[in-house]
Amino acid sequence: MTFQAPESLSEQIAQHLGQRIVTRDLMPGARIQELKVASDLNVSRGSVREALLILERRHLIQIFPRRGAVVSSLTVASVNNLYDIYIDLLCMLGRKIVERWAGDELRGVMGRVREVETVVQAVNSTGPDSAEKVIEAGFGVMRYAYELVDNPFLEETLENFRPAISRTYFVALENFRDGIGQTAVFFRRLGDAALSGDAERLQSAIQAFGEHQRQQVLSILMEEESA
Amino acid sequence: MTFQAPESLSEQIAQHLGQRIVTRDLMPGARIQELKVASDLNVSRGSVREALLILERRHLIQIFPRRGAVVSSLTVASVNNLYDIYIDLLCMLGRKIVERWAGDELRGVMGRVREVETVVQAVNSTGPDSAEKVIEAGFGVMRYAYELVDNPFLEETLENFRPAISRTYFVALENFRDGIGQTAVFFRRLGDAALSGDAERLQSAIQAFGEHQRQQVLSILMEEESA
Repeated sequence: MTFQAPESLSEQIAQHLGQRIVTRDLMPGARIQELKVASDLNVSRGSVREALLILERRHLIQIFPRRGAVVSSLTVASVNNLYDIYIDLLCMLGRKIVERWAGDELRGVMGRVREVETVVQAVNSTGPDSAEKVIEAGFGVMRYAYELVDNPFLEETLENFRPAISRTYFVALENFRDGIGQTAVFFRRLGDAALSGDAERLQSAIQAFGEHQRQQVLSILMEEESA
Repeated sequence: MTFQAPESLSEQIAQHLGQRIVTRDLMPGARIQELKVASDLNVSRGSVREALLILERRHLIQIFPRRGAVVSSLTVASVNNLYDIYIDLLCMLGRKIVERWAGDELRGVMGRVREVETVVQAVNSTGPDSAEKVIEAGFGVMRYAYELVDNPFLEETLENFRPAISRTYFVALENFRDGIGQTAVFFRRLGDAALSGDAERLQSAIQAFGEHQRQQVLSILMEEESA
């Protein structure tokens, strides 16, 4: 049995506010007022300031000197910039796995992707949390990939983008519900590509998956913007 | 005339401590004690805590719950992990420039690289600050590239890696002094590749440059580790 240190207070505040930003309960462009958060949550102003630095690192807010913190924008341009770098970093993760692992090892490794496929296929696409389960399963594959690649800089950088990516999924959640069958197909292609040990093929599969998600998000966002 | 807001106190503390880490005045593995820093600099403990979060974002320290802050390690493995992601992000920056700009525009753009070449060639390699000037000129090219690519996520991610990269340059500073002529050659190859508008060629030039720096750093570090 292992005991884990509880999250620091500032981390707890960051997760609370972060969840509100990801679900767009706190809207893009909204100001976050230190004093108000401190009094609402009954915590010190210092803890809130630390939480805001954590949220800035996770790309969910921007802090302007003297003007304070503002929830990051969520526009066609910002989604494109975000997916550009995110897909690129995922490709790097994929390349590193293929470089480091081969043959039998890779087959063991890719059992994890197969498990996700099974989860995805078993999900009742009409169930209430189906999209969330599939999204969580996808992040689970990434966490497993981190262990294999063992580059803390890459892991940290990708993890810092995760909340902002999650927010874009929330935009397109209804679409994800409809497209769960399609997501399973992408997972299968990922698994096959990884098993082949062909870095180019894995990269193409990652890009195809990423571009698919990007387009889903963009199409909803464009509808919203023109509404 | 534009007025700039002064850096926040926590940013100033972060820069002060960051400079000490980059120059290895604060050694890898050293503990940074909040209370001691606060009393040495005559600032509040809260400001120090914020500064530590900024330094963690810049990959210079790690913060462990209850154990506090420790200067990031500087080993063959950590340098390899750092250069792996840094070179990859630079390649992305290069690809995006070529995607976005072409022909005449690219020629204007690459005037900046030529200026750096001139700086590098004019530097008296025996001068006291020659290596620092060349390193600063290199970062200047990056800042210019950010404007062209206009992806705040990529810029922020690269900028967050800059202090850790600077620290590795400090390890190999003597070598950089000797190799300034060679650095000029790499800059010329970068400029030529960018001008050609050939993304693959630019990527190869960036990789060759990055790998050259990595090897310089690694060779000194291996000497130190075996000493």
